[in-house]
Parts: sequence; structure tokens; C-alpha cells
Amino acid sequence: MSKKIAVVLTDEFEDIEYTSPAQAFKEAGHELTVIETEKGKTVVGKHGEKVPVDASIDDVKPEDFDALLIPGGFSPDLLRADDRFVQFAKAFMDTKKPVFAICHGPQLLITAKALEGRKVTGYKSIQVDLEYAGAKFVDEEVVVCCNQLVTSRTPDDLPAFNRESLALLEK
Amino acid sequence: MSKKIAVVLTDEFEDIEYTSPAQAFKEAGHELTVIETEKGKTVVGKHGEKVPVDASIDDVKPEDFDALLIPGGFSPDLLRADDRFVQFAKAFMDTKKPVFAICHGPQLLITAKALEGRKVTGYKSIQVDLEYAGAKFVDEEVVVCCNQLVTSRTPDDLPAFNRESLALLEK
Repeated sequence: MSKKIAVVLTDEFEDIEYTSPAQAFKEAGHELTVIETEKGKTVVGKHGEKVPVDASIDDVKPEDFDALLIPGGFSPDLLRADDRFVQFAKAFMDTKKPVFAICHGPQLLITAKALEGRKVTGYKSIQVDLEYAGAKFVDEEVVVCCNQLVTSRTPDDLPAFNRESLALLEK
Repeated sequence: MSKKIAVVLTDEFEDIEYTSPAQAFKEAGHELTVIETEKGKTVVGKHGEKVPVDASIDDVKPEDFDALLIPGGFSPDLLRADDRFVQFAKAFMDTKKPVFAICHGPQLLITAKALEGRKVTGYKSIQVDLEYAGAKFVDEEVVVCCNQLVTSRTPDDLPAFNRESLALLEK
């Protein structure tokens, strides 16, 4: 069944951490909505990938979506300075909808205080942040926690990240 | 008296968070050493500022310096993925030498697990990280903790950051 996936994305995202899962999700028949501050603007990845913004954070509600994708790069740290994105991400965690976060993606979930007691992985630089945030960090290519949260470390992990994310969307 | 100040810096630093304190410290007669992985390479700020690297992290010891400057931007997060920089910063905290960290600079100190019980400030996006790391976060232009650690939030705070950092160097 086709699912509606919200993607929170801003400049300086790690290009392939958006393009790879986006392609995998679309090929499986799911529908993606890229969310930033302003509909119609273009966000640009670290390596130049340009992605049009489908919706403003002010015009969407978590209940409009079945799942959330948080690509990495510097995008998650920029987004979490804006409380609207923190609250948006928190709602998916609170309602136990699938959340897919790779590399620096879990930073947004730390700021949402949504990782206490969760088993996660992430990019090496945020390992201590994750541990301080009450998560159990494991150094594996993909971690699926509580049948809801999928995390991975780097672009090298994308095949496993996409596989497990798709598996959750099938449920 | 002239002091020797180590600066840990890599690409994507917030340009003025290096250039402004560097100028203030040099004008006061202090000596700066920019440290990254390789002597002679050039690191480039988010806005294009180019800074030559004076020394490799492999060729310096914390005991060679009187103080440490950690400019912000994405540089601190990149540096903390390399344990040599984490241990280098930790040594200044352990020996209670002056440490000056602005914006995202405190990220390196979180990974060094050196902020427990400290009063600090920093860029908004890392506030929750700092609190989870056991620091007491305060939203002020500059915070001086324990006569040793100077932190600020953004480039707007640079006059206060430079003033308090210079005051510590005079002691």
C-alpha cells in the first residue's frame, strides 16, 4: 500500500542520503513530500543536488503522513534550530510512526528528546551526543528499534537503511 | 605576557569566529597556532576565508600551549569525528587551561565529556546536546565558567567573547 512520507530537508544535506532513499521509496510506490520553511524554494545538498520544496512546515501536520525521513549532512543541525521542525519530528516519535534517520539525522531526534531508552546508530561524530541523550548506541550498518525507528551511520549503509525502512513501510 | 594559543580548525568553520578572535589575540601580543591534520594545507571557511594550517595534530602536544580556541561553524563537528582532536581538547579541560569555544565549538567538548557540571552557552541548535551532556546552559552573550572556560552563542557575541577571552589570558 502506498504510504505518505514526510522528508525534512534543508541546505547542506548529504545528497545521496536524500536521493537514494527517495528513489527506493518512490520505486516502491510511496509518495514523498519535501518539507522546509517555504514551498517552491530549492534546497541544495553539500555536493550540489537541488531539491524543490513541496510544502512549508507551517502548512503540514504530522497526522497527514505515515512516516518521516531525516537525511543527514548538516541539514538536521540547521533544522533543529527551528522549533517547528523539532515538534514535527517529535510527533512521529510520540505516535510511534516509522522514522528513518541516517548519519546526522538523529540530531533532530535528540533535540526532540525522543531517544531516551532507544537503540540507535548514527554518524561517529554524534555518538557521544546520542549516549548522553539516553540512547543505546551500537556501531552497526542499520538498527531497527521498537519496530519504528530505523537509523544508519553513513552513505555506505544506504542499502541496509533503505531495505529496513521499506520493510517497515510494508507493515 | 604573550601566550601561546592553539586553534583547532577545519573546513566549514564560521569565518568570523576564527578571524575576529585571531585578530584580537594577535593585537594583544599573543601567538596563534592553527592545527589540523596536515601542516601547510589550507582550510576554508563557510564563506571562503582561507587559513593556512601551522601544525599537524600529530606534531603538537597540549603542554606546548597556554590556551585553546575552538571556532564554530561545522568545523567542530568534523573535528570531533577524529579522536586526536577530542583528546587534545580534553587535555586543556583536564588541566584547567583557558578554553574559548563559540557557537558549535562546545560540540568538541561534549565529545571529550568535559562539560559535566559546567555553566556554558552555545548555538541554539546544540542547547539540548549541552544539557544532556550535564552542562548548565544559559542564554547569554558570554559565559565564563570556573575561571577557565569562555563560551558564546553566535558571531554577534564576538565582542563579549573576545573581551572575556583576553581577560583570562591576562591572568
